[in-house]
Amino acid sequence: MSSVVIGNHILGRLREIGVDTIFGVPGDFNMPLLDLIEDNPKLTFCGNSNELNASYAADGYARIRGAGAIVTTFGVGELSAINGVAGSFSETSPVIHIVGSPRSAHHKETPLLHHTLGDGDFDVFHRMASLVTVASVSLTLDNAISEIDRVIETAFIQKRPGYISIPVDLIKETVQVSSMIHPLQILPARNTQRTQLLVLKQILKLIQSAQRPVIVVDGCVLRHQLQTEAVDFIHHTGFPTFSAPMGKGIVDASFSNYRGIYCGKLSLKGVAEEMEKSDLLIELGSIKSDFNTGSFSYGLENVKTISLHSSCTIIDHAQFPGVGMHELLPLLTAVLPVTKSQLELPSRIKPAPIDDSSVEITHDYFWNKVHQYILPNSVIVSETGTSGFGIFNMESTLGASYIGQILWCSIGYSVGAALGAALADRKRKVYLFVGDGSFQLTAQEISVFIRKGLTPVIFLLNNDGYLTEKMINGPYRDYNNLPMWEYSKSLTYFGGNLEINKSNGKSPSIIGLEVQVNTRSEFEKTMVQVNQEPNKIHFLEVVMPQFDAPQVLSILAADLK
Amino acid sequence: MSSVVIGNHILGRLREIGVDTIFGVPGDFNMPLLDLIEDNPKLTFCGNSNELNASYAADGYARIRGAGAIVTTFGVGELSAINGVAGSFSETSPVIHIVGSPRSAHHKETPLLHHTLGDGDFDVFHRMASLVTVASVSLTLDNAISEIDRVIETAFIQKRPGYISIPVDLIKETVQVSSMIHPLQILPARNTQRTQLLVLKQILKLIQSAQRPVIVVDGCVLRHQLQTEAVDFIHHTGFPTFSAPMGKGIVDASFSNYRGIYCGKLSLKGVAEEMEKSDLLIELGSIKSDFNTGSFSYGLENVKTISLHSSCTIIDHAQFPGVGMHELLPLLTAVLPVTKSQLELPSRIKPAPIDDSSVEITHDYFWNKVHQYILPNSVIVSETGTSGFGIFNMESTLGASYIGQILWCSIGYSVGAALGAALADRKRKVYLFVGDGSFQLTAQEISVFIRKGLTPVIFLLNNDGYLTEKMINGPYRDYNNLPMWEYSKSLTYFGGNLEINKSNGKSPSIIGLEVQVNTRSEFEKTMVQVNQEPNKIHFLEVVMPQFDAPQVLSILAADLK
Repeated sequence: MSSVVIGNHILGRLREIGVDTIFGVPGDFNMPLLDLIEDNPKLTFCGNSNELNASYAADGYARIRGAGAIVTTFGVGELSAINGVAGSFSETSPVIHIVGSPRSAHHKETPLLHHTLGDGDFDVFHRMASLVTVASVSLTLDNAISEIDRVIETAFIQKRPGYISIPVDLIKETVQVSSMIHPLQILPARNTQRTQLLVLKQILKLIQSAQRPVIVVDGCVLRHQLQTEAVDFIHHTGFPTFSAPMGKGIVDASFSNYRGIYCGKLSLKGVAEEMEKSDLLIELGSIKSDFNTGSFSYGLENVKTISLHSSCTIIDHAQFPGVGMHELLPLLTAVLPVTKSQLELPSRIKPAPIDDSSVEITHDYFWNKVHQYILPNSVIVSETGTSGFGIFNMESTLGASYIGQILWCSIGYSVGAALGAALADRKRKVYLFVGDGSFQLTAQEISVFIRKGLTPVIFLLNNDGYLTEKMINGPYRDYNNLPMWEYSKSLTYFGGNLEINKSNGKSPSIIGLEVQVNTRSEFEKTMVQVNQEPNKIHFLEVVMPQFDAPQVLSILAADLK
Repeated sequence: MSSVVIGNHILGRLREIGVDTIFGVPGDFNMPLLDLIEDNPKLTFCGNSNELNASYAADGYARIRGAGAIVTTFGVGELSAINGVAGSFSETSPVIHIVGSPRSAHHKETPLLHHTLGDGDFDVFHRMASLVTVASVSLTLDNAISEIDRVIETAFIQKRPGYISIPVDLIKETVQVSSMIHPLQILPARNTQRTQLLVLKQILKLIQSAQRPVIVVDGCVLRHQLQTEAVDFIHHTGFPTFSAPMGKGIVDASFSNYRGIYCGKLSLKGVAEEMEKSDLLIELGSIKSDFNTGSFSYGLENVKTISLHSSCTIIDHAQFPGVGMHELLPLLTAVLPVTKSQLELPSRIKPAPIDDSSVEITHDYFWNKVHQYILPNSVIVSETGTSGFGIFNMESTLGASYIGQILWCSIGYSVGAALGAALADRKRKVYLFVGDGSFQLTAQEISVFIRKGLTPVIFLLNNDGYLTEKMINGPYRDYNNLPMWEYSKSLTYFGGNLEINKSNGKSPSIIGLEVQVNTRSEFEKTMVQVNQEPNKIHFLEVVMPQFDAPQVLSILAADLK
């Protein structure tokens, strides 16, 4: 037997799933855990401005690292984060939510404590959390070690959030464990071998008889960290390969068989036509949500489809549970003969050239221009709304990762998520695209970028209101308008130039450009400067015409009316 | 039979419980309801920066008006608000949360829509809401009218939140109703008459045999809008009257029998001693929570106690359900003979005079000084932490109402709550006291004050970090520090000086003082100017020593270690 401090056991398990930065807000019930984090040389605590932002940051971090974690306090803190946690469920991101709760004795005596509902129910927040997580527990001294392991393993394997509530007195409590703590069991379950063999044969047969097989890559490839396996398959087959919006980043213009973003009627003109000529569709990690499919407008009802998922395979409507793509996909690449002469592909369709008759920064101009300034291997975070839809058909940057919420669509997400992504890998440049309406929900997190010495380029797309909402209902309604802020003073207001933030051994960000750009030439000049100063944080308020929108959004909004 | 539009029925019912401003954030599933609000000459929609702030605003509004309402959108919006709604449950505030959800048909077909968890469960958010509300419903065409009435009635009578989820297509749908729509049944249930008679006799007997009866008023008097009834009783009896912190505002220095704030060991020196000499305690609307009782330090175990609650009465441990104070209290006042000669009361104990040997703005100085500048009949909103505890023993201002969360204690609440309170009664001056750490959670709501033309005086108490947390754990830990902001530029940053906010027929606030004060004399000069310009919004960043705290907080923090 040996002994372990319960809080340290949680932290050790988080390290095993790749977490080295933990987000959150201090509270009287969680501070002993923050002590352990700060005292752990392999971990960093990132204090956020509020818990919702922390949950978004953990999600953005998980998109890059494979897992994330937040610490909040009982009731008030955890409920403020629950929208972010639900978003991680929806978008399949394994975020571990750790909540500091009242002392163990208080869970039994249930006195009228602060941060309770006042009705003696100390389990209610756990019950709420259990509805948006795949595993949850309120720890006791007896179950702590096994339950911590269960929650973290389940969340990591299923790529959904987990919830651990720990009484404050147990955080630094020591428990006895068997002398060897085994590593977490976080590999996906092995496929059912007989079924897999059958599936493999059927797939090979379908591919061999197909004239125009195509591949569509989608979000679950990224969420299950199967990008390498997918890329090998795409290279090996040479089949024309499209990406759904949620799969953006798996393939890019460096692939000779990359054909563009397919999203039904939201695809670039010509892309859907090319795609829909296919006679065999091979889907990798498909997520058939409304926005990811152009309001369910795939024109492929009569095409044979092979769909590889994380824990099952579907071949022409027949489901094969227990055959997941983690094992099947490399096997398929290995056994698939490259016998077929590759179709000669026409030039890939690209966005139409910019209409340069205007000086205004329109969406058509912006999304066709901005990618020219983005550095390779960067992380591109886009907010729901004009940014998220504008980026659908933006030309891919080499090695870039894309972060957004195409399913959950919680506005304000991108600001926190960009923070998390920036901390997940400081070597990668982060670009954040966010509209004015969305920015107002979570703007304060800018100060945490600065405090942590991060150097993103932030584009605040200012079109004076909630444009997406205006396009759906009430374009001239007051409820769709906002107070205007001095956005281009954000770095200053949030403390970027304060001497006090530069003292105390901290290394806050060096403030770069903080400007409002109104014309195309201003924008282009500014971007040249931005790229000359990569070690600074930059903030561009990009003023756009109030009712101008990306075409993708115009089409979608009409469906939502 | 006549017909009514479902959305309008909701709005009519909200008007009946006193709501004329509805808070929230637009979303694709709720905008038709916002149309109806904007088109209703008796209602105003107040768009907030985010949903959590909206929920805080609705709670602050309810504290002044007796009820409040918010509108959010399915999933993302409603979960962002759920901490605020849970706070309204904990603190007994009837806030009606109206959520716009996907079309009725989609609830049956459950397609993979944005704003869902992606698992086809369209009822999960309703189930979560049901855990922090006293009545909730997901409306259908058939149950709409009766369920709207049930939820609003229940919430209003029980003074807790209610939840109404309405599919977007039903908002403007017309339904047939019986020709007469009866008013809501929102009066509290009548008391059980026989029991009440018994209770009345017992109370009279106890009072007649007591030598030193005292009254303690508390939060439920305010929440159940029984201030007039309580004041009549206090005047009629002449008994020495104390207030618990949550009851602050029911009595003030204009009452000859007012004796101060009683909160166990947190009371001013001498107040507890005076109070605990009593031989009969009459409690009105008592809430025995940890912070409201000085960590359960009432020294009254052996004193006979009569406790009047909203729906029961407790006499010396015997409970009488069905005898609520709304009916019992005026009856008691009516039948109670004023036979006893009033005890001669010594001078009321007041806070110790200010130690004026320092120029620094300490808490001791601040709370003893600031009340001198506060206008009568104002609304005083204080944040959890230094502000909320500093205000415990601050001298009462005539006719003032106090808003804070002494039970739920969600930091950031006060900023939204002050907005709601200011819109609840534009004739009353609002003073907001908020610490720097708490301000960072919800700061963006300042822009909504400005947009709505409100004129509060905002005190940002800047002690460079989470002081309350530092006093409990880790005073020098990095997790208890914050990035410093340019707080005294808040009105400017959030758009107070932008011409665009002054156009379009809007009437935003006129910006008054926006300053940082570092010394007592700066503070006093500034306050004189503030009072000379009552029609402007003022923002004072009050710089305080980093580890200085109100004495009440020092005592409480020691208990929380």
